[in-house]
Amino acid sequence: MKLSIRAPFAVALSTTVIATAGLAASHTASSSNKAVAARHAQMEMISYNTGLLGSVAKGEMEFNAEMVNSAAANLNALAKMDTATLWIGGTEQGAADGSRAKPEIWTDAAGFTDKFAMLEKASADMMDAADVDSVKAGMGAIGESCKACHEAYRGPKN
Amino acid sequence: MKLSIRAPFAVALSTTVIATAGLAASHTASSSNKAVAARHAQMEMISYNTGLLGSVAKGEMEFNAEMVNSAAANLNALAKMDTATLWIGGTEQGAADGSRAKPEIWTDAAGFTDKFAMLEKASADMMDAADVDSVKAGMGAIGESCKACHEAYRGPKN
Repeated sequence: MKLSIRAPFAVALSTTVIATAGLAASHTASSSNKAVAARHAQMEMISYNTGLLGSVAKGEMEFNAEMVNSAAANLNALAKMDTATLWIGGTEQGAADGSRAKPEIWTDAAGFTDKFAMLEKASADMMDAADVDSVKAGMGAIGESCKACHEAYRGPKN
Repeated sequence: MKLSIRAPFAVALSTTVIATAGLAASHTASSSNKAVAARHAQMEMISYNTGLLGSVAKGEMEFNAEMVNSAAANLNALAKMDTATLWIGGTEQGAADGSRAKPEIWTDAAGFTDKFAMLEKASADMMDAADVDSVKAGMGAIGESCKACHEAYRGPKN
């Protein structure tokens, strides 16, 4: 069901990419920098919540169902963030300071949102984790979504 | 309807604050710093999306229904973030580097989540904005929620 919800979203994004082409042309360096900073903030929050779940999986933090649900729910909300205002045109690596965004984010928008859909599903599954073993089992899919997106859509370090 | 959904959430948070008291005792400086950094990332994203809406309201950016909806939807998702893993015990101002969180966040957890509920409602209203005037009209409630929370729960600059 998650994927059937996501499919029209991917289509909607493609439309957005076209619709914001004019917007991109009028971007100032300042608005581009702010968008990149906001994306980095999104990634920091994703990393934070993934780190909490990883600590539980590794036994460094005691399992607590409420905490795991909270981290997974926030991860899920971050995966579902609308990309239109964050990944604005003209903010790829080389065009905006600090950006590591590959042009494929815009040329293959459906593939890009699919990676967020992977994280959305993996984090939704994690929300129901009832014990450490469930957390351990769920970490694989979360890690795979991060890796898949970074490999395809993140450029080298600046 | 939004408020009736929020009320049980506030109760749930109070329970969480109690439930994580033991967790707080085992926090390392590193985990406290990470929580503070994640909250700052949340605030940066809130500021970014509010800034986009403000630019439209001020006429600095052309009205675009899809962009306004995207910014408002992301703001709404940020307002709904589960507080349990972000506002962990022992990370108030003075106890964790860079924190400006007042102790009232924990002693008055219901009041604190009410402020996020204000932002949740204000951003949900903004999602339907059909023109610049609607954006202008909706900015007041968003600004009030920011102000109300900062006045009651944010300490002085470090």
